[in-house]
Amino acid sequence: MNGREIHLASRPLGWPSESDFVLAEVAVPEPGPGELLIRNEVMSVDPYMRGRMNEIPSYVTPFEIGRPLEGGAVGKVVESGSAEFAAGDVVLHQAGWREYALVADDAATTVDVTLGPASAYLGVLGMPGLTAYAGILEVASMVPGEVVLVSAAAGAVGSAAGQIARLRGAARVVGSAGSAMKLEYLRSIGFDAAFDYRDGALRRSLRRAAPDGIDVYFDNVGGQQLEVAIGALRPHGRVAMCGAISMYNAEEPPAAPRNLALCMGKRLTLRGFLAGDFAHLRETFVAEASAWLRAGELHYRETVVDGLAAAPGAFLDMMRGGNVGKMLVRL
Amino acid sequence: MNGREIHLASRPLGWPSESDFVLAEVAVPEPGPGELLIRNEVMSVDPYMRGRMNEIPSYVTPFEIGRPLEGGAVGKVVESGSAEFAAGDVVLHQAGWREYALVADDAATTVDVTLGPASAYLGVLGMPGLTAYAGILEVASMVPGEVVLVSAAAGAVGSAAGQIARLRGAARVVGSAGSAMKLEYLRSIGFDAAFDYRDGALRRSLRRAAPDGIDVYFDNVGGQQLEVAIGALRPHGRVAMCGAISMYNAEEPPAAPRNLALCMGKRLTLRGFLAGDFAHLRETFVAEASAWLRAGELHYRETVVDGLAAAPGAFLDMMRGGNVGKMLVRL
Repeated sequence: MNGREIHLASRPLGWPSESDFVLAEVAVPEPGPGELLIRNEVMSVDPYMRGRMNEIPSYVTPFEIGRPLEGGAVGKVVESGSAEFAAGDVVLHQAGWREYALVADDAATTVDVTLGPASAYLGVLGMPGLTAYAGILEVASMVPGEVVLVSAAAGAVGSAAGQIARLRGAARVVGSAGSAMKLEYLRSIGFDAAFDYRDGALRRSLRRAAPDGIDVYFDNVGGQQLEVAIGALRPHGRVAMCGAISMYNAEEPPAAPRNLALCMGKRLTLRGFLAGDFAHLRETFVAEASAWLRAGELHYRETVVDGLAAAPGAFLDMMRGGNVGKMLVRL
Repeated sequence: MNGREIHLASRPLGWPSESDFVLAEVAVPEPGPGELLIRNEVMSVDPYMRGRMNEIPSYVTPFEIGRPLEGGAVGKVVESGSAEFAAGDVVLHQAGWREYALVADDAATTVDVTLGPASAYLGVLGMPGLTAYAGILEVASMVPGEVVLVSAAAGAVGSAAGQIARLRGAARVVGSAGSAMKLEYLRSIGFDAAFDYRDGALRRSLRRAAPDGIDVYFDNVGGQQLEVAIGALRPHGRVAMCGAISMYNAEEPPAAPRNLALCMGKRLTLRGFLAGDFAHLRETFVAEASAWLRAGELHYRETVVDGLAAAPGAFLDMMRGGNVGKMLVRL
């Protein structure tokens, strides 16, 4: 039996293109002892994957040329060499970008589909949701009554971050995004204000959305929005630095905030983080988030494309902001 | 009786000049009930005063044109309208830049000259020392075994910061400064390595001084040194943002770190602070620092100029890096 997978064909310089990816057909292996063969049903494309396409070692190892890409995926066990799992189990693992995945049993976790659909474990109940939860509550230490700004707010992480802030008592939640449709979406899920970062009047837009300033900035984009947020932060304000999507494809050194000297007088804290450091919160987070889902208080959206061959395009479209909510590929 | 004081004559744009200051002679007032008349003996010039010369409201109110400047000073009570103080008491207060100061009794504190000379309360035992102590231990949360970088390390704050790091168990302390004489001074007070930030090879100099990277950066300067430090910080590294002297006189937006995206992967924290927020540590700090002074383990130097008329020149010289250790004016 054969299965298809997406390999990295070449390392992109600046913006990736379809030609940096190649679809390969390979023989599906037999699971050995302690291994699972999984038929992937849905896979995730996430901004952090862009970093792994570079050769520069980072907090995650670079993808290898001519080898399959990796990333979160949910699938069904078709053959199990492990006593821990049986055929038919629905599991979350990191061997995405392929139809059949061979995975060690300790690298897979069963997902509880009574709490939410399997795909939610790649989004609102998964890594993006935990990122939002840890960023708002642990990294930024948001307390009730504060004003929160989220950039890339219509994405999987941003939409969860804004809603978690609201559900945990923020006085006002403001989001930025890149289209009228996204702004409408943000208002529909409870953001108090939303503005388009592309309209060229960032400072004024933020002032209108948060006239008294902000206490917390959940940063997914870096660059100019970070500078404007630093200007708007009130004393003892905090930035949860989650991502810098405005910089990932930059070939020139990107714009940098020229107003960092405000950090002293305003006693600001800027703190970068990775969701992986908050794995100890996963259980608490899933319990709290699934209760919000059941109560209809936490909303999420998915942008789904079909077929493995569409995965590179889905990744590129997500980097350009083409998705609302979680970008997924259904296999 | 008349006394002299320095008034702000005009608000500097960019670098201040002597003409922004004027020496005025005024009648010395009588202290009313609860007031002290103090003959100032030594006064401080500090980088933060530059910010108060601008009209922009900040964490401290701007100086007023035609009114005396303010700042730390130590003097002797010549006449007391308060039961708390007697003539002859040596007190620390904030009405510097003048020969005679009229001060409310709750704005003055007696200094214990058995712990250190009176002038030390403007430096190593005073606000600069507390700034260093709070920055290293509270803001950066340095733990024994870490590698620490301090910029403007030959100044009052920087020289204390590096030594406090060493005395509290840093594995390696590196300082940057702007002259061979300053680098020599840093080595003489126990810095493990020192480099000249003006030599045009910042990145290489830091790599040589700290080949395995740094854990803590005590930032007094901002700008390009901050960028280089972010590049050298190891995972979970911290920046105590104390000052940005490279920016205070800039008329153009200053250089900004273009590598902030490293904060995510390395989980860096950048935190701005003001010594005023750590007043609760003052007693602990003075006890610990004066014990180090007595034991000969903590060193400090003063650059002293004579006469109130020389104060503007001393301030300008300090902004240009002309001092080693604390810049003081003896009246």
